Amino acid sequence: MSESFPVEVIGHVLGGRTEPTDDNWGGTRCVIRIDPDTFPADATLGLGDFSHLEVVWHFHLQDLDGLFLGARSARDNPAWPRAGSLAHRNMKRVNRIGVSRCRLLKVDGLDLHVEDLDAVHGSPVLDVKPWFPEFGPRGPVHQAPWSQEMLREYFAPAAPAPHERH
Amino acid sequence: MSESFPVEVIGHVLGGRTEPTDDNWGGTRCVIRIDPDTFPADATLGLGDFSHLEVVWHFHLQDLDGLFLGARSARDNPAWPRAGSLAHRNMKRVNRIGVSRCRLLKVDGLDLHVEDLDAVHGSPVLDVKPWFPEFGPRGPVHQAPWSQEMLREYFAPAAPAPHERH
Repeated sequence: MSESFPVEVIGHVLGGRTEPTDDNWGGTRCVIRIDPDTFPADATLGLGDFSHLEVVWHFHLQDLDGLFLGARSARDNPAWPRAGSLAHRNMKRVNRIGVSRCRLLKVDGLDLHVEDLDAVHGSPVLDVKPWFPEFGPRGPVHQAPWSQEMLREYFAPAAPAPHERH
Repeated sequence: MSESFPVEVIGHVLGGRTEPTDDNWGGTRCVIRIDPDTFPADATLGLGDFSHLEVVWHFHLQDLDGLFLGARSARDNPAWPRAGSLAHRNMKRVNRIGVSRCRLLKVDGLDLHVEDLDAVHGSPVLDVKPWFPEFGPRGPVHQAPWSQEMLREYFAPAAPAPHERH
């Protein structure tokens, strides 16, 4: 590609999960710490009036070696049809940019406490925006059936760790 | 900021509007042309099974000179409360990354025909993802009243050009 430009990391995800596994993100809590060397304390003023954030972040654990941009089945499950790399949302993409919605629990200065963010501890953050409902999809929404099947457990609560089981 | 990395432009917005004005984006149509030198023809296979896309793009017309990251009223309207730069979604942000949902009208190879995308002709595109409804905001949603007032005409249809008026 002939055109590229640099982007700056404006903060990091702290806490929450450490492995970018497929499912069970429901109830995950972490903090988005915005860089205090760049942002003034009032950069988050008024953000607490919104229930949700939209977070643009970097799939920094994903290796770019052997990146395949053609068509394949989601999660390599042969029960689902092949779909092109642009018809997936997984980490195997040119710029490794993730876009996620999460619930905003608390604003503490430049620390944003959130729930349901599917980014692991240490993920670099490129942007944080309030969720404006007007900017959701307009008109009737439909999706490929494979994507619905795939996401059944995505936000299911995490199973208790072995030592917590009875 | 100490951390940055390059991102690649994977395509461009062609057609539609040329001025990034505030309102009246409803019904705007344009094409997202994915770079054929990088992506194979089947990179969009199956994308047509989704009604909407999520597009990550670059506010390339926004000048970074004098970027102000503190709090100000949206559209500099004193009737609305000051809010920090991270509580806005406008173009005045560190990485000038926009995230928009739009309706997918037609997939023609690597040309994606879309409606309601609020990016002007020539905008560099960083990523295209299908909209998975499961990834919308979870639980009750609320927003700052100023944002609701501000967006009343955002997706109103464009007024006819003067020569089209009767």
